Amino acid sequence: MKLQVTQENLSRALNTVARIATTRGTLPILSNVLLKVIDNRLSISATNLDIAMTNFIGSKVSKEGAITVPARLMQDFVSSLPSDIISLELDNNKLKISSGKYQSVINGISAEDFPIMPAITEGKNWVIPAPILKKGLQQVIIAASSDEARPVLTGVYLHTFNNSLYAVATDSYRLAEKNLINTKETIDLLIPCSAMQDLLRIIGDFDGDIEVTSDDQQVLFRVGEIELITRLIEGKYPDYRKLIPEKFAVTATLPHSELLNITKVSSLFARESAGSITINVDDKDQQINIHSIASQLGENTAAAEAKVTGDGNITLNSRYLLDALHIIGSENVSLSFNGKLEPSVLRESGKTTDYTHIIMPLKS
Amino acid sequence: MKLQVTQENLSRALNTVARIATTRGTLPILSNVLLKVIDNRLSISATNLDIAMTNFIGSKVSKEGAITVPARLMQDFVSSLPSDIISLELDNNKLKISSGKYQSVINGISAEDFPIMPAITEGKNWVIPAPILKKGLQQVIIAASSDEARPVLTGVYLHTFNNSLYAVATDSYRLAEKNLINTKETIDLLIPCSAMQDLLRIIGDFDGDIEVTSDDQQVLFRVGEIELITRLIEGKYPDYRKLIPEKFAVTATLPHSELLNITKVSSLFARESAGSITINVDDKDQQINIHSIASQLGENTAAAEAKVTGDGNITLNSRYLLDALHIIGSENVSLSFNGKLEPSVLRESGKTTDYTHIIMPLKS
Repeated sequence: MKLQVTQENLSRALNTVARIATTRGTLPILSNVLLKVIDNRLSISATNLDIAMTNFIGSKVSKEGAITVPARLMQDFVSSLPSDIISLELDNNKLKISSGKYQSVINGISAEDFPIMPAITEGKNWVIPAPILKKGLQQVIIAASSDEARPVLTGVYLHTFNNSLYAVATDSYRLAEKNLINTKETIDLLIPCSAMQDLLRIIGDFDGDIEVTSDDQQVLFRVGEIELITRLIEGKYPDYRKLIPEKFAVTATLPHSELLNITKVSSLFARESAGSITINVDDKDQQINIHSIASQLGENTAAAEAKVTGDGNITLNSRYLLDALHIIGSENVSLSFNGKLEPSVLRESGKTTDYTHIIMPLKS
Repeated sequence: MKLQVTQENLSRALNTVARIATTRGTLPILSNVLLKVIDNRLSISATNLDIAMTNFIGSKVSKEGAITVPARLMQDFVSSLPSDIISLELDNNKLKISSGKYQSVINGISAEDFPIMPAITEGKNWVIPAPILKKGLQQVIIAASSDEARPVLTGVYLHTFNNSLYAVATDSYRLAEKNLINTKETIDLLIPCSAMQDLLRIIGDFDGDIEVTSDDQQVLFRVGEIELITRLIEGKYPDYRKLIPEKFAVTATLPHSELLNITKVSSLFARESAGSITINVDDKDQQINIHSIASQLGENTAAAEAKVTGDGNITLNSRYLLDALHIIGSENVSLSFNGKLEPSVLRESGKTTDYTHIIMPLKS
């Protein structure tokens, strides 16, 4: 193995891939990245056995070959080098790296010892514009559970329904659903949230199409020169659609910034009560107000004008409401509910409703 | 107590003072801030018994009085309120706060229970331009020790010598000294590093004079409308001047950015060896090079051109060298030393030498 690459390309690829490499596992080689030269391209890969990522970069190849080297050292070293051409040469499992007045040797482990993810040989293929998938994932991931006791809730459920592709996540206290694109495919993928977070990092500002290939056990996302492959979560996703109310007795519509402000202030007084805040919607005054009590510290009431239909109150966890408001991008937002014990629904107001965020009430 | 203040002023003062309030101590009232209205001014104070801070702000006072309230809740609450006039009214140890559509009650503890720092009635007075003290403290604080076993080394030593005021700090592995101003005063103050860090935060962009008042046990810094008072550290500061070599056998002068780069890269390979890097200065090649070895992972050599007098090598802790380079602001820097076991000295090159940074060598 002997080749030349630019510091910029090598550093960018290492920064993308190296975070998958882990030092926590029992298999020391998983803290390495695999460098592999075939067909005038250098590929850089890492895996934690659940997820594998590969980044291809152009290079001037003199000799093919492969080696694995410690991910963090390689990443830190290359990112510290000045912007220049870097020469890589393999000599008996030692990788010689030189650039200008910098010369180093990094001890590698044979590429043959590196685990590989099974390839997806036969699978379903489809594409989705990167910005749409990115926005959708950002708006649902927050609702996923981190509790490994119910694995299906730790995933993002990408599936088709009535010729639309949806992304959904829920931890059973809240649920977020985004209508992504119209499609005639039949898609049904339950993907670990951690892999979707890695995918979001890869997407970054990429605005082309993402190619998706899947079989029963794995799914591969191809984002430009970067490939991410992850195992799927086994199990049946809950039939969440019946949870979403179709009609509401009470709805308040107001500027997003106003609801965010009064929720923030109220949440400060809700720290002692597990985030509990009571929202009151008043038809006569056309007003929404939020009350919270910290028995030791004091209490607070904050109000805002709103377009209101119906009267009522509901008690929510302020953290969930803040989380939802932070990922809603519209200028106006509507909060709707029926009774005190039924789910409340937040929606973006003033355009096609393709995003639904449900928060279950607390008993007040 | 009844008054009106602007949200901006109250929030800024709380953000400045509240960080002194502590929830860790045994005295619950120390997690409160003291609000006190006298002479048409609101003063906001906090103390951890070592340091006390007070910020005065203008306000429209209807009735004098005083109360203490939980610092963090008050700070978070006021900073979340919209930019507007805030009304404060005390009713039986309950502080009513209202602003527009926000109304809250915070339960206070009587101001009489709040500890006060002894005032400095008779003391020495002097002034120093804030930007000079700020720069000086930033350049020496890093060298102070955090080991409470030797309290004198946890301080910054502000003292006069030959009609100059110096700031010094050392942890016995490194030492930083800055010549601040010429003065005819006799000053001799050993001030806890933590208080100097608080002072740096207070100074911020303030570019006026700082008034300093001290007696044998305490020192007060007045920065505009903010006062910080801290106890002094007892004990005699080491006679450090004899440590600073007057002549050097070896000196290398090079651009700051070059020395920083080769040190950074070398430090990556020094993680296994407690930061140990070996610096070689070569008179014939007019070059400085740094070698580091990570026995398991590999090794590295990085070189840079330099103006060199003398030949030699010395082994330093790369972290100390990086720390020093991060606080040196000049375009060129000189590294000087005599033998392998004697202190090395970093200085800003190309202007009056008012800053000296000493690093003791490691045994190689």
